[in-house]
Amino acid sequence: MAAPYLDAETLNFLLFDVHDLGSVLTQPRYQDYDPESVALFLKSVADFSDQELHPYFREMDASPAHFRDGEIAVHPQVRKYLRKAGEMGLISALFDYDDGGLQMPNMALTAAAYIQEAANNHLPGYAGLTLGAAELILHFADDALKDLYIPKMNTGEWSGTMCLTEPQAGSSLSDIETEATPEGGHYKISGQKIFISGGDYQGAENVVHLVLARFKGAPPGTGGISLFVVPKNRVGEDGSLTPNDVATLGDFEKMGQKGYCTTHLAFGDKGDCRGWLVGEPHRGLHYMFKMMNGARIAVGRGAAAIAMAAYQASLSYARERPQGRSLNPSGKKDVYSEQTLIINHPDVKRMLLLQKTIAEGSLSLVLLAARYQDLSLTHPDEAERLRYHNLLEIITPIAKTYPSEMGSASVSNGLQVLGGYGFCSDFVLQQYYRDIRIFSIYEGTTGIQSLDLLGRKVTMEKGIAWRLLVEEITRSIKAAEASDRLRPYAAQLGNRVEALGGAVGSLLKFASKGDFERFLADATVFMECLGNIVVGWLWLDIAREAEDGLNSANTDYRETFYRQKIRAMQFYYTYELPKTIGLTEVLLNQEGITLESPTDLFG
Amino acid sequence: MAAPYLDAETLNFLLFDVHDLGSVLTQPRYQDYDPESVALFLKSVADFSDQELHPYFREMDASPAHFRDGEIAVHPQVRKYLRKAGEMGLISALFDYDDGGLQMPNMALTAAAYIQEAANNHLPGYAGLTLGAAELILHFADDALKDLYIPKMNTGEWSGTMCLTEPQAGSSLSDIETEATPEGGHYKISGQKIFISGGDYQGAENVVHLVLARFKGAPPGTGGISLFVVPKNRVGEDGSLTPNDVATLGDFEKMGQKGYCTTHLAFGDKGDCRGWLVGEPHRGLHYMFKMMNGARIAVGRGAAAIAMAAYQASLSYARERPQGRSLNPSGKKDVYSEQTLIINHPDVKRMLLLQKTIAEGSLSLVLLAARYQDLSLTHPDEAERLRYHNLLEIITPIAKTYPSEMGSASVSNGLQVLGGYGFCSDFVLQQYYRDIRIFSIYEGTTGIQSLDLLGRKVTMEKGIAWRLLVEEITRSIKAAEASDRLRPYAAQLGNRVEALGGAVGSLLKFASKGDFERFLADATVFMECLGNIVVGWLWLDIAREAEDGLNSANTDYRETFYRQKIRAMQFYYTYELPKTIGLTEVLLNQEGITLESPTDLFG
Repeated sequence: MAAPYLDAETLNFLLFDVHDLGSVLTQPRYQDYDPESVALFLKSVADFSDQELHPYFREMDASPAHFRDGEIAVHPQVRKYLRKAGEMGLISALFDYDDGGLQMPNMALTAAAYIQEAANNHLPGYAGLTLGAAELILHFADDALKDLYIPKMNTGEWSGTMCLTEPQAGSSLSDIETEATPEGGHYKISGQKIFISGGDYQGAENVVHLVLARFKGAPPGTGGISLFVVPKNRVGEDGSLTPNDVATLGDFEKMGQKGYCTTHLAFGDKGDCRGWLVGEPHRGLHYMFKMMNGARIAVGRGAAAIAMAAYQASLSYARERPQGRSLNPSGKKDVYSEQTLIINHPDVKRMLLLQKTIAEGSLSLVLLAARYQDLSLTHPDEAERLRYHNLLEIITPIAKTYPSEMGSASVSNGLQVLGGYGFCSDFVLQQYYRDIRIFSIYEGTTGIQSLDLLGRKVTMEKGIAWRLLVEEITRSIKAAEASDRLRPYAAQLGNRVEALGGAVGSLLKFASKGDFERFLADATVFMECLGNIVVGWLWLDIAREAEDGLNSANTDYRETFYRQKIRAMQFYYTYELPKTIGLTEVLLNQEGITLESPTDLFG
Repeated sequence: MAAPYLDAETLNFLLFDVHDLGSVLTQPRYQDYDPESVALFLKSVADFSDQELHPYFREMDASPAHFRDGEIAVHPQVRKYLRKAGEMGLISALFDYDDGGLQMPNMALTAAAYIQEAANNHLPGYAGLTLGAAELILHFADDALKDLYIPKMNTGEWSGTMCLTEPQAGSSLSDIETEATPEGGHYKISGQKIFISGGDYQGAENVVHLVLARFKGAPPGTGGISLFVVPKNRVGEDGSLTPNDVATLGDFEKMGQKGYCTTHLAFGDKGDCRGWLVGEPHRGLHYMFKMMNGARIAVGRGAAAIAMAAYQASLSYARERPQGRSLNPSGKKDVYSEQTLIINHPDVKRMLLLQKTIAEGSLSLVLLAARYQDLSLTHPDEAERLRYHNLLEIITPIAKTYPSEMGSASVSNGLQVLGGYGFCSDFVLQQYYRDIRIFSIYEGTTGIQSLDLLGRKVTMEKGIAWRLLVEEITRSIKAAEASDRLRPYAAQLGNRVEALGGAVGSLLKFASKGDFERFLADATVFMECLGNIVVGWLWLDIAREAEDGLNSANTDYRETFYRQKIRAMQFYYTYELPKTIGLTEVLLNQEGITLESPTDLFG
C-alpha cells in the first residue's frame, strides 16, 4: 500500500523530470550517483519512514515532550530514530567522503528529508539540527574540534543544536548577551538561550550546542558576536564525558509539534561551562548565516511536507465519505438517489485542488532551492556558480515563507474538507493544522524573511539577484509560448511579473530617497505577491514538462498523471495567481499608514 | 482596569452611534428601554463576564470536557454560569414579557452575548442553545409543552440543545434517519445524533433536546422531517423527573473550545424514549431554519468576539515587548540605542491593523444583522418589515461566514505578533487560534453558507435581496461622497460593487441555462468577495460617523478615537478591499475546472 502521507509519483516527477536531478549528478562531486541509485536510496528512506516515523506521529502529539526533574522526557523513538538516521547516512549525507559523508547532492537529501517530514514532522528536526551543527563545525572549526565531534554526530550518537535566541532579544540578534571569557585554550560561557529545538532530552549521551555569544567588551550589534561549540558533556582525552554545566531550565509547551522539544538552557550557572571558539572572533553571525540559509529552506521543506501529508489525508477522506447529492438540471437534488461521495462536490474539489497546487508547488520550490544550492557549489563554471548563488540568495526567503504561510492555508482547507470531523482529535487534520503553524515563525518569522527579501536580496549588488530571477521566469515563459495550450498562461504570468516589477520600481524610489522604513513597510505584502508568482512560474514549468511527456513517447508516467498536472496548473492560474492583482495594488499605495505613530492608530 | 478582552468604547460606538440602537428602541415593543438602560445592562454583563467567565477561560482549555462512566464531566463553572445567566435574564432576554422574557431588542442581546464570548467562548454556548431551544418551543409548540419547559429553561435550571446531525448524514439533512413512532399522545424516538453541543453533562438536572426525526413512511428528503421535544428526563405531573432513555455515548475530543462539550447521543436504545411533536408533521426543518438564522448570526458573533479578544491580547503584548530597532535614514540600525517596542515596527502595525479592521468590521456586521432582525419584527410599516426581512436573509450567511473565516486569519496574525511565544501554551493566542477554527464549520460550513448565499439569497424573488443590499451600500456611498476625505473611498467601493455585480450577471447566465452546478461552483469565492465588500461598506459608515463626530460638537468620544476609526477605514481600503479585484477575476473565469470528474483531477 502506498504511504498515506505521500504522493511518491509526484515527488519523483518533480525531482527527476521537472528539476532534472540527472543533470546535477553529472558534476564530478556526485560521480558515484545516478538517478537509479538516488531512487533506490529514496525507496529505503520511504521504508524507513513507514516503519520508524509514521507509526509514532499521533502518539508523539498525544504524549508531548515535557520537563520533569530537571530533564525533558521525550518519546523513546527520538533516540532510536537518531541512531537509525545516522546509520543510514541521513545526517552526514551532504558531507565529503573525507568527513565521513556520502557526498550526496542536496536535492537528493531534500527529497529524503521531505519524505520523513511528511511521515512525522516531530522527529526529523533532531537529525536536521545535528546536521546543521556538524556542518558549522566542519566548515569553520579547527581539526581538533572536528575530530572530537563529527564522528559521533554523523552516527547520531550525539545530537546538535543551534543556540541563537535569548529571552531579552528574541528575533533581534544584535542584543545577544551570552558572555564568553577566555580561560586557557577555551572560554567560560555564561548566559541563557530559549526556544532551542532538540536542546536536551532524557538519555541523550551528549548534545553539541553551537552557541552565539560575545566576548566582554565586544562591539555592540551583530558584528560583536562569536560562535562557540559548547557540549552538554565535555570530552576527556580518554573519551570520558564530564558534565559541562549546561542546565535545562524548562521545555516550552506548544500548540503543535509537541514531540519536538523546545528547551530553555542555562550555560554556566555554576561557573563551570566551557566553550571552544569556532573560527575567528566576531564572525559568529556570519558563520551562522552561512548555515541559516540551509536551515530556512529546511523549514520551507518541512511545511511543504506537512501540506502534502494533509492533502493526502483530505483526499482519501473525500474519496470515501458519502454525503449530499449533486444538483440536477432543475437545480434540485434527487432525494431518492444514493448520496454521492463528497469528492464529487465542486467546492470540495476546489479545496482539494487548492491543497494540491500549494503542496506540490511548495515541493517544487524547495527542490528548486536545493538545485540552486547544488549548482552554486559544484557547477564547473565559476560565473555559473555565482549566478546560482545569487538565485539561491533571492529564492531562500521565498522557499522558507511560501510553504509555511500557504501551507497553513492549505491545511486549513484540508481540515474544512472533513467538516466537523476535521476539528476532532480522532482525525489527523487538526494535528497538521496545529503542527504547521510554527513554520511561519521558525528561523526568522515571515516578517523577517520579507525584510530580507525586499531589503537585502532584491537590492543586493544593484539588483542582480532580482534580475536573474526575472530572467529565469522569462525563460520559462518563452518556452511555454511554443505550446498553444500553455501560451495564454505564459502571457498571464508575464503580465503579473511586469506589474510586480513596476511596483518594485515604485518602492525603490522610497529607498533612493533614504526613506527605508517606508520602502520596507509592505515587505510582507511583497513577499506574498512574489511567492505567489514564483509558484505560478514553477507550475508553468510542471505543465510544460507534463505536456512534453504527453507529446513524446515518454511512458514514465501515466497519461492521466500528465493531464492532471496540466489541469492543476490551470487551477492555479485561475484561482491563485489573480490574487497578485490586488497585492500589486497594495504595493502601489501611497498612504504609508503603518508608518504612523501607534498612538494615532490604536485605541 | 479595562477588561483585557474587550474594547468597550468601540462596542458602544458601533452599537449606539453607527447602528443607532436608539432608533430601534423607539418601537413600542421596546418602550421600557432607552440607550442608558441598555448601557447599564451591558455594564452588568461586562462585570458578570469579568467575574464568572474570563477567570475560567484558560482552565477550561487545560481541563477539557471528557466522557467518563457514561457521563461527560465538564468544568463546574458550566452549571454555575447557566444559573447566573438565567437569573440575569440572558436566556430569556428576547422573549415576550408574557413568556417570562425581557422584550429586549436583539441588538442589545447581541452586544451582551458578544461580551461574554470575548471573555470566554467555552461557556456562553450552553446558554445560547438553551435560548434557541426555548425559542423553538415558544414559537411552534403547544401551550402544554411551553408551560412544562420554558420556565425552567429561562432560569437556566434546565438547558437545551438542537439535535440535527447524524453520523451517516453530516451536513446532508435530507438523510436524517432518526425515527418517531406514534404512541398515545407522544412518540417513541429512536436514533443517534452527533456533534450535539452542550448535549449532556454531569449534574445536569434536565436537558431539553429539540430533535429532528422522521415518521416511518415519511417522504424522503427534507420535506419528511418533523421536530420533537425529547427531554433527558421526562417530567411527571408532580414535577418529578424520570430518565427518558437518552444515553450519552461519548464526547468528541476537539482541537479547541474544549470546555464546550460536543456529544454523541443515542435516543431509545432501550425502547423507552419519548418525544413530543412540535407544530405540524413534516415541518420540522422549516421550524428549525427559522431559528437557524439566529444561530448562524450567533456563530458569526462568537467568532467576532474571539477575533476582538485576540486583537486586544496582541495589542497589549506589542505595547510591552521591546525588540529590535527602527531604521535610520542610512537604512541601518543604531545598535547603541535602546530596543524599541515591537508596536513601532511597520509590519507589526500592519498585522495589528488587520486584526483591528477584521475584528471591529465583524462586530459591525453582526450588529447590522441584529438590527435587521429587530426591524424585520418590529417596524410599524409592513413594507419596511419585509424589506428588513429580505436584507436579513442575504446578510445572514455573510454575518456567519466573514467573522469565522477572516476572524481565523486575524487571530493567526495575532499569534504571529508574538513570534515564538504565540505558539506557546503559556500565551493565550494559540488558544484563540484553536478555538476560532470551529466557527467556519458550526451551523453549516462556509461552503454551505456560500451555496445558500449565491444559490438562494441572491436569486430569491428575482433578486430582491441582492438589489436591496446594493441599494443600502449605494446609500452609504452617496452619503460619504459629501466628504472630501471619504469621497475617494466611496468611489473605490462603488467600483468594487459594480465589478461584482458584473460577475453575478455572468454567473446567473449559467443558472438561466440550467447549469446549476456551474452557477454555484465558485459560491465560496463569491462569498469571500461579497463579505470583503460588505465589511468595506460598514467601515465607510464607521468612518462617516467618526467624521460627523469630529465635525460636530459631539464629545461622546475622544478626537483621537474618531481619527483612529477613519485611519482604520483607510487601512481596510488600502490593504483588504483590493483583494476583491482578483476574486472578481476568479468569478469571471470560464474554465469550470471543479466540475470535472475527480479521476481527471486527482492522482
